Amino acid sequence: MGKRVVITGVPGVGKTTVINKGLEILLAEGVTYESINFGTFMFETAVQDGLVRDRDEMRRLDRTIQKRLQKNAAAAIGKNEGNIIIDTHCSVKTPKGYLAGLPEWVLRELNPDTIILVETDEDQILMRRLNDPTRVRDMDSAKEILEHQQFNRSLSAAYAVITGCTVKIVKNQDYLLERAAADMAAVLR
Amino acid sequence: MGKRVVITGVPGVGKTTVINKGLEILLAEGVTYESINFGTFMFETAVQDGLVRDRDEMRRLDRTIQKRLQKNAAAAIGKNEGNIIIDTHCSVKTPKGYLAGLPEWVLRELNPDTIILVETDEDQILMRRLNDPTRVRDMDSAKEILEHQQFNRSLSAAYAVITGCTVKIVKNQDYLLERAAADMAAVLR
Amino acid sequence: MGKRVVITGVPGVGKTTVINKGLEILLAEGVTYESINFGTFMFETAVQDGLVRDRDEMRRLDRTIQKRLQKNAAAAIGKNEGNIIIDTHCSVKTPKGYLAGLPEWVLRELNPDTIILVETDEDQILMRRLNDPTRVRDMDSAKEILEHQQFNRSLSAAYAVITGCTVKIVKNQDYLLERAAADMAAVLR
Repeated sequence: MGKRVVITGVPGVGKTTVINKGLEILLAEGVTYESINFGTFMFETAVQDGLVRDRDEMRRLDRTIQKRLQKNAAAAIGKNEGNIIIDTHCSVKTPKGYLAGLPEWVLRELNPDTIILVETDEDQILMRRLNDPTRVRDMDSAKEILEHQQFNRSLSAAYAVITGCTVKIVKNQDYLLERAAADMAAVLR
Repeated sequence: MGKRVVITGVPGVGKTTVINKGLEILLAEGVTYESINFGTFMFETAVQDGLVRDRDEMRRLDRTIQKRLQKNAAAAIGKNEGNIIIDTHCSVKTPKGYLAGLPEWVLRELNPDTIILVETDEDQILMRRLNDPTRVRDMDSAKEILEHQQFNRSLSAAYAVITGCTVKIVKNQDYLLERAAADMAAVLR
Repeated sequence: MGKRVVITGVPGVGKTTVINKGLEILLAEGVTYESINFGTFMFETAVQDGLVRDRDEMRRLDRTIQKRLQKNAAAAIGKNEGNIIIDTHCSVKTPKGYLAGLPEWVLRELNPDTIILVETDEDQILMRRLNDPTRVRDMDSAKEILEHQQFNRSLSAAYAVITGCTVKIVKNQDYLLERAAADMAAVLR
């Protein structure tokens, strides 16, 4: 049985960059991981099952059906035998508040060994978001980003209690990507 | 099926004022909510069942019986079909430590869509408590109020993982009640 | 049925000293507690069952077997009828991240009445660790100690939601051991 690692981080923290750099390091050592984006995987499964045609339909699904889709996607991913990285949200910030990315029914199916939180100072995240031309939606203040990261830590504590997984905080600070990638590789190795 | 929203906040944060103002805004739009105080509801059920005659007896009940009362009250509230606001504590500060207001057996019966934490800066809460002539019990310091609010956030993260509900933080800052009420109405709308 | 109190604290916080002083106060009042170290108890059970011969073998056990050992140890402790103190970790800091000391399967068997977090300022803990000649492993910075204590608070919130136990924070500040012991005795009394 391989390792199952969930990787999360608020938008703009540079999660994907850290994952790619970290996997490069490991690949050079002969360690391989399959990388799965939870949202994409769930969407593709829903399309195959004829439940939706696009992402918009996905969002408009009834809560009970969404829950079932999440559970099924998690169960399918959980059957994977090799090393996998599951790229997902610790929480999603919605107009109605924070939504846990790994509610209990997802968590119990995924049964991860480790959850990694990629973090950095809230002002660095703010500046990265300001410099991202593809980002058009409402901006969070630095204080709100801090609140979001803190809430993610609290969520990850609940994840750890339910599954027994470890929770690792990997800092992706400005100018220190190499270090973040090395820290991530050390957890995945 | 209506919306089920749990509203919490430490003593002195002005939770009831925000609820009333928020519901006024919604009523003008034709949106109605039934407001239920969890503690009162539970007490009245216990009186009807002949288990207690007053609040003091309630507190002295055996832990197992209290748990059953909580569960039954939550189940009865959970059967409600319309929009409901459940006014309760995220945690109660007791001499033995913080007690979760929504332990698992309550949470699973209530199954809320959203939990709202009404918060403000700890020094504002301290001043509001100092200016409340009805408050006679031991005073918490600003640091202790901060600790309480932070613990409530951590609790709400666990609530979110178990139920899949969203967690919304609504700030009720000095001189900004209108904004707090508007924020609350936006979640309940 | 006696009281079941779990006591935790990061290394260097002085947990054992506070426990001993607190139990002294209670003993003078005729209140007695049996003190159980969770790790030691689990290890001794594993030796008796012929599963391991030393602590190193313990650490190398398969995750599933470790989980079963934890569960069995918790169940055996949970059967205890008298007042017990369970001395354990809120979380263990491992190279793969924080590991919950009381994952769900342990928690449900122990079913504690109260979890006590012994804490103090991170710089005080840092200095205590620096002055401990038996401590040879990598040092955490003050920021890392802060992070660890905060994560323990979040974990304890999840513990509280699952079991309904109270969570009490007892400060063990420099020069104020007497106060810490008195605070602990007040919870155990």
